[in-house]
Amino acid sequence: MNVKQLVQQALAEDIGPGDVTTEATIEPGSQARADLVAKEEFVVAGLDVVREVFFQLNSQVAFEPLLQEGHLAQRGEVLAWIKGDARSLLQGERVALNLLQRLCGVATLTRRFVDEVEGTSVRIVDTRKTTPGLRQLEKYAVRVGGGFNHRHSLYDGILIKENHVVAAGGIASAVERARRHASHLMKVEIEVRDIDEVRQALAAGAEVLLLDNMSCEQLREAVAEIDGRAMTEASGGVNLETVRDIAETGVDLISVGALTHSYRAVDISMLFQ
Amino acid sequence: MNVKQLVQQALAEDIGPGDVTTEATIEPGSQARADLVAKEEFVVAGLDVVREVFFQLNSQVAFEPLLQEGHLAQRGEVLAWIKGDARSLLQGERVALNLLQRLCGVATLTRRFVDEVEGTSVRIVDTRKTTPGLRQLEKYAVRVGGGFNHRHSLYDGILIKENHVVAAGGIASAVERARRHASHLMKVEIEVRDIDEVRQALAAGAEVLLLDNMSCEQLREAVAEIDGRAMTEASGGVNLETVRDIAETGVDLISVGALTHSYRAVDISMLFQ
Amino acid sequence: MNVKQLVQQALAEDIGPGDVTTEATIEPGSQARADLVAKEEFVVAGLDVVREVFFQLNSQVAFEPLLQEGHLAQRGEVLAWIKGDARSLLQGERVALNLLQRLCGVATLTRRFVDEVEGTSVRIVDTRKTTPGLRQLEKYAVRVGGGFNHRHSLYDGILIKENHVVAAGGIASAVERARRHASHLMKVEIEVRDIDEVRQALAAGAEVLLLDNMSCEQLREAVAEIDGRAMTEASGGVNLETVRDIAETGVDLISVGALTHSYRAVDISMLFQ
Amino acid sequence: MNVKQLVQQALAEDIGPGDVTTEATIEPGSQARADLVAKEEFVVAGLDVVREVFFQLNSQVAFEPLLQEGHLAQRGEVLAWIKGDARSLLQGERVALNLLQRLCGVATLTRRFVDEVEGTSVRIVDTRKTTPGLRQLEKYAVRVGGGFNHRHSLYDGILIKENHVVAAGGIASAVERARRHASHLMKVEIEVRDIDEVRQALAAGAEVLLLDNMSCEQLREAVAEIDGRAMTEASGGVNLETVRDIAETGVDLISVGALTHSYRAVDISMLFQ
Amino acid sequence: MNVKQLVQQALAEDIGPGDVTTEATIEPGSQARADLVAKEEFVVAGLDVVREVFFQLNSQVAFEPLLQEGHLAQRGEVLAWIKGDARSLLQGERVALNLLQRLCGVATLTRRFVDEVEGTSVRIVDTRKTTPGLRQLEKYAVRVGGGFNHRHSLYDGILIKENHVVAAGGIASAVERARRHASHLMKVEIEVRDIDEVRQALAAGAEVLLLDNMSCEQLREAVAEIDGRAMTEASGGVNLETVRDIAETGVDLISVGALTHSYRAVDISMLFQ
Amino acid sequence: MNVKQLVQQALAEDIGPGDVTTEATIEPGSQARADLVAKEEFVVAGLDVVREVFFQLNSQVAFEPLLQEGHLAQRGEVLAWIKGDARSLLQGERVALNLLQRLCGVATLTRRFVDEVEGTSVRIVDTRKTTPGLRQLEKYAVRVGGGFNHRHSLYDGILIKENHVVAAGGIASAVERARRHASHLMKVEIEVRDIDEVRQALAAGAEVLLLDNMSCEQLREAVAEIDGRAMTEASGGVNLETVRDIAETGVDLISVGALTHSYRAVDISMLFQ
Repeated sequence: MNVKQLVQQALAEDIGPGDVTTEATIEPGSQARADLVAKEEFVVAGLDVVREVFFQLNSQVAFEPLLQEGHLAQRGEVLAWIKGDARSLLQGERVALNLLQRLCGVATLTRRFVDEVEGTSVRIVDTRKTTPGLRQLEKYAVRVGGGFNHRHSLYDGILIKENHVVAAGGIASAVERARRHASHLMKVEIEVRDIDEVRQALAAGAEVLLLDNMSCEQLREAVAEIDGRAMTEASGGVNLETVRDIAETGVDLISVGALTHSYRAVDISMLFQ
Repeated sequence: MNVKQLVQQALAEDIGPGDVTTEATIEPGSQARADLVAKEEFVVAGLDVVREVFFQLNSQVAFEPLLQEGHLAQRGEVLAWIKGDARSLLQGERVALNLLQRLCGVATLTRRFVDEVEGTSVRIVDTRKTTPGLRQLEKYAVRVGGGFNHRHSLYDGILIKENHVVAAGGIASAVERARRHASHLMKVEIEVRDIDEVRQALAAGAEVLLLDNMSCEQLREAVAEIDGRAMTEASGGVNLETVRDIAETGVDLISVGALTHSYRAVDISMLFQ
Repeated sequence: MNVKQLVQQALAEDIGPGDVTTEATIEPGSQARADLVAKEEFVVAGLDVVREVFFQLNSQVAFEPLLQEGHLAQRGEVLAWIKGDARSLLQGERVALNLLQRLCGVATLTRRFVDEVEGTSVRIVDTRKTTPGLRQLEKYAVRVGGGFNHRHSLYDGILIKENHVVAAGGIASAVERARRHASHLMKVEIEVRDIDEVRQALAAGAEVLLLDNMSCEQLREAVAEIDGRAMTEASGGVNLETVRDIAETGVDLISVGALTHSYRAVDISMLFQ
Repeated sequence: MNVKQLVQQALAEDIGPGDVTTEATIEPGSQARADLVAKEEFVVAGLDVVREVFFQLNSQVAFEPLLQEGHLAQRGEVLAWIKGDARSLLQGERVALNLLQRLCGVATLTRRFVDEVEGTSVRIVDTRKTTPGLRQLEKYAVRVGGGFNHRHSLYDGILIKENHVVAAGGIASAVERARRHASHLMKVEIEVRDIDEVRQALAAGAEVLLLDNMSCEQLREAVAEIDGRAMTEASGGVNLETVRDIAETGVDLISVGALTHSYRAVDISMLFQ
Repeated sequence: MNVKQLVQQALAEDIGPGDVTTEATIEPGSQARADLVAKEEFVVAGLDVVREVFFQLNSQVAFEPLLQEGHLAQRGEVLAWIKGDARSLLQGERVALNLLQRLCGVATLTRRFVDEVEGTSVRIVDTRKTTPGLRQLEKYAVRVGGGFNHRHSLYDGILIKENHVVAAGGIASAVERARRHASHLMKVEIEVRDIDEVRQALAAGAEVLLLDNMSCEQLREAVAEIDGRAMTEASGGVNLETVRDIAETGVDLISVGALTHSYRAVDISMLFQ
Repeated sequence: MNVKQLVQQALAEDIGPGDVTTEATIEPGSQARADLVAKEEFVVAGLDVVREVFFQLNSQVAFEPLLQEGHLAQRGEVLAWIKGDARSLLQGERVALNLLQRLCGVATLTRRFVDEVEGTSVRIVDTRKTTPGLRQLEKYAVRVGGGFNHRHSLYDGILIKENHVVAAGGIASAVERARRHASHLMKVEIEVRDIDEVRQALAAGAEVLLLDNMSCEQLREAVAEIDGRAMTEASGGVNLETVRDIAETGVDLISVGALTHSYRAVDISMLFQ
């Protein structure tokens, strides 16, 4: 599902056979103009989606973004204006805001994590803990916020977890099978839980190690053991309080599920002029 | 879009042409069993969606819910088990959790609001500020949490907002137009901002008044003025700290956007046995 | 399904992999012009659908409606002209007429019922007895003809029928359950068959009573009993001969299934110039 | 669009996000049984569609047809029974009847035309004047009623009309082009308006002549002129009063648009036991 | 599935959530121009499909075909140029070539068969042995190459094969049933294997005889026996070596499965300027 | 598009509103049994697709594969049998064969390439030059034939081509941008044309080098230069005559477009018993 289809479905969900209130009260052909206004401070992400919403409702509606993606909007700042058929503006308002507020929420939360680790070389990365249907957009918002994307889905990256290891009969066998099955363009990442598993994974030729639920001390020890022979990703127990300490253990990546599963929709109003 | 289609799209989004890791490491036909375990306290909602996820992947997978919808699960409690083809279990895990954790999040937040107003006759209702694509499920979770649903969409309820009033040339005209356009089975709700508008709306025959962004004092005054001639809904500035005071003003309904736009996904693990 | 999708499917149904006759006999790029001409007297409804048909076939085709929706066209009057690619005109003719002739048929039949009750305050309303796939359009044509729409579907209005009453354990319980389940914006309508049920429904707080299959005498008695405490809808045995008498019993609404299930397609030709 | 998809769309149109009345008043899991009862005399057609409606709602619902397709049902006869989940029965009732009543209507009207020409060798055939979305089903009902199908769509048969002839530069050229473009499995039918055109068409090798809007006298003359060198189809001005006379002119086929554009939905009730 | 949908799916298949390489290396808004260049000699077919590919990616991309469909392109000749957004050009390249190379392949192979039978009156026709999803396009390419189309699918032509004959209880019965079931616009073709079956088929009134897997001698004998009373189609064992001899037996049509099941994709490059 | 959808579309394409021949000649409910028989030697691939075809037509049809995927079938060997409703067997025959014959063709051609390089450590890999709509299946058939898959699509692997390099301002910049944009699980492959580019790519940290259109001598030189610091893929000018020599230059992978763009459908019959 691409953005076009997502917006199509969202509009069908919200409008269906018709907006009874607007059809009753607004004359066909009435014109209006509205501003999208920030009601709090946040990172802007997703204005193109707003354009798509109104374009689908009425290709004559004009949309003008006033801020760049990634801009830190201040309370009161106007993000964009929309102008045209009044019915279309009223009918698209909720869907546009439902999407935009969430994407800005993702970008804003990501920015906070990124700011926390400033000065280190660590990358904040997302996970597959995204809202069903919104993955592509939420992952885009993570990038806008300064984060990086982990694999998009199960098909574009290998990540061997504990259950895969058990089923494959051990770390060596799992790594070897993954390499044989997947295209030569994919690196093999594997979840490890202690130094012993770190050593096995390295020996098997894993290229990325997911250090799962380790304490900072354990992370530091693992990083030392690995010594550049594989990339390292820390995961589990990451929040705004802990992320700096984790970053300073020397891992390459920190994955944060919260970026996409526990963000808060930011406050934006669509003010009719 | 119904639940079946939503799950279909979510699986396509996450699996697409295939799960490279699982296909490489798990033999076709391997069997597994996993438990869904609560990692914190929350209200259970959405187990049927989990069933649908695994059913679509493999109609032979068995799914057994162990808790009722609406149950307050404790940390460590097992919500359900899933048994069958190991590949299917691993491939459906993320989509199932992504949905379940969100729905439990909605139900849990709703329950907290409902608990706050216990003893009053007020109804906590949701809004259209839902996640695009998930409206039907999120509104279901609101009900599981003890809340009530406001209109589902623009097509099954009338809510005249300020912009509709302006376009229609006043409150009286807007109400009259809405009544003429809509079926006789719909009540007319209208947003009002002060006592003067309350009076106009009552005179026009509005059946529900949305008291928007009023202080508790204003709400109390409005409720007295209305005196049972229309239903009253408070909206704006509602949170867990303010909701009790608002409820005690005597309004009939309090609508809370946060129920569906600012919930937190709860923590659930799928543990393979 | 919206109008766009309906037209898309109708064209696929009629053209599929290609119009063998037209492709053989008409050179690509040939131009033509055709008029839509009334071959009998009828109420015009649905010209926008004709525009959509030709637009989908070829966005360069020009379409110009010459009559207003709701106009009573006379035999020989030109409803609209279409101009452009000759192949597109020939390929869209049948689908355009199949839709337009039916919608004008609905509007025309509705107008006849509406004319019959002229001078009374009764509303002629439609039902859900519409053609699968065409509900939105047929209900639109009812409005063009001067009628009003009953609920669109099962999701935007409550109508408790006999079987619901039985299952819920009586009228009082059914009304109470409906009110608790539905949003506060929906009125509760219930089907009643005699004065005793009328009384129970009123006591339960039903807001609309469907007086089903009652004689005019019974209707008059029911209206007197209700005395303005609920809206009244007469249903059953309604036709052009009986509708006036029913209207004069004082009911508020008369629902007529025939508007959408037994109309006749009107006669329209598409004449190439 | 096949029958499965048609039913799917019809159910979505009527139920959408949910049947508020039934969900409120009927407990999940309640069982019910209902009979489909004829309220007038008609030809049965389309019971399989009813099965599909209930199957899609709930694959556990049992459906048992009691009459054969083509049977002339008498008032009071039971066509079929349906048994299972009460919610599903109530939710599918309207869609099932909307389809069944229309298909029986088509079959019944067809039967009347067929009966009128009994004893002649003429075939009553349908046209493309079908309800958008229902063509396959309506054409099936024509066959059940004893009629025959003309081409299904523009892609499975050649019918050269006046406008094609003009564009192609004459009858001879049009026939020749059609034969060259189409597969060798298609016959060429062409519309002719007088004896002169009949002669041109025969000379060009047309295999079927559509004698459009001719009087019975003209038809008789044309049939004599053609003398078996091509099939003949009469069209235009056909109704139950004229069809016998037309049949006796000796034409092979009489096409009747009314079969699918002006039938009346028959009266059927779904009675819960 | 029409061409628009086919291209849509092909693009989704190849691009899905995004082209990681292009998004990383090409700035949004960069412009480019590329030529489609023939790397060998072939018959051009399908340039419109290329237009559709780039149009769907970006409606601002300009596409200019430089050669006619059916032209015999020489090595080095430029077929068309494409100009516009560089990302779109890079992203559409593979899908455009995958389609174009195949269609040119079909047209080229067809031309070779057609050339072999030059001077005879035989028609080279295709079969239903097409690539699933590409039938409409491949059959178009056959026509571009100078061939003719057999029936498109199972719904637009009758072809009675051996198994149908057995099930129907003989040739006479099968022909009679086909004629009764199908519209009067379809001819009846039947597969026959020897002179005896030829005679039965003629007696039954079959209009086309498929002479299956016969030697040239048998074909000649059959043609003599039939003597113009039915069309004749040879099938089986047809290749570039045998087709001339078969054509000279006097059959009307030769069907060649290889046209669409064993063509070779021709070599075309998209050269960026 | 998954296999289910592909089969659904293929059946719609071939059957549409109905199989006129089979519906006319085969009684509903007739039973039949047919064998899939190899008419030449080939590698078996895709029997599950055949199962899906008949399952979709009629879930009661039994399908029993008799050979393993990857088996080298001999002329006359029975691949599988199908048993059940005769109409379904006849209607699915063509679609089943159209898919199966192509997939076996891909596997067979792949096997020939793989056999040619036996004893070397080189991997034969496919490309994105697949048939639109069939990519997933054709890539599966490549694996069955002993080959390996290159990236599936543009979204699951990075391959920087010449045009990307130019746009990015050089090899170093392109590699760096790719690494920054893509997930850390993707390796960076880049196309190089001479030893100078090889050196630049290595310096930039590319992990896979696509040695494009190099002679065997150049390949050997490049392999020596690279000396294990990156994987090597040879591409261009690969056929059954040249592949062995290329393999012996020491490259890791040889990509062969012909595997999926120039295979021949193998000969298989479905023989009714």
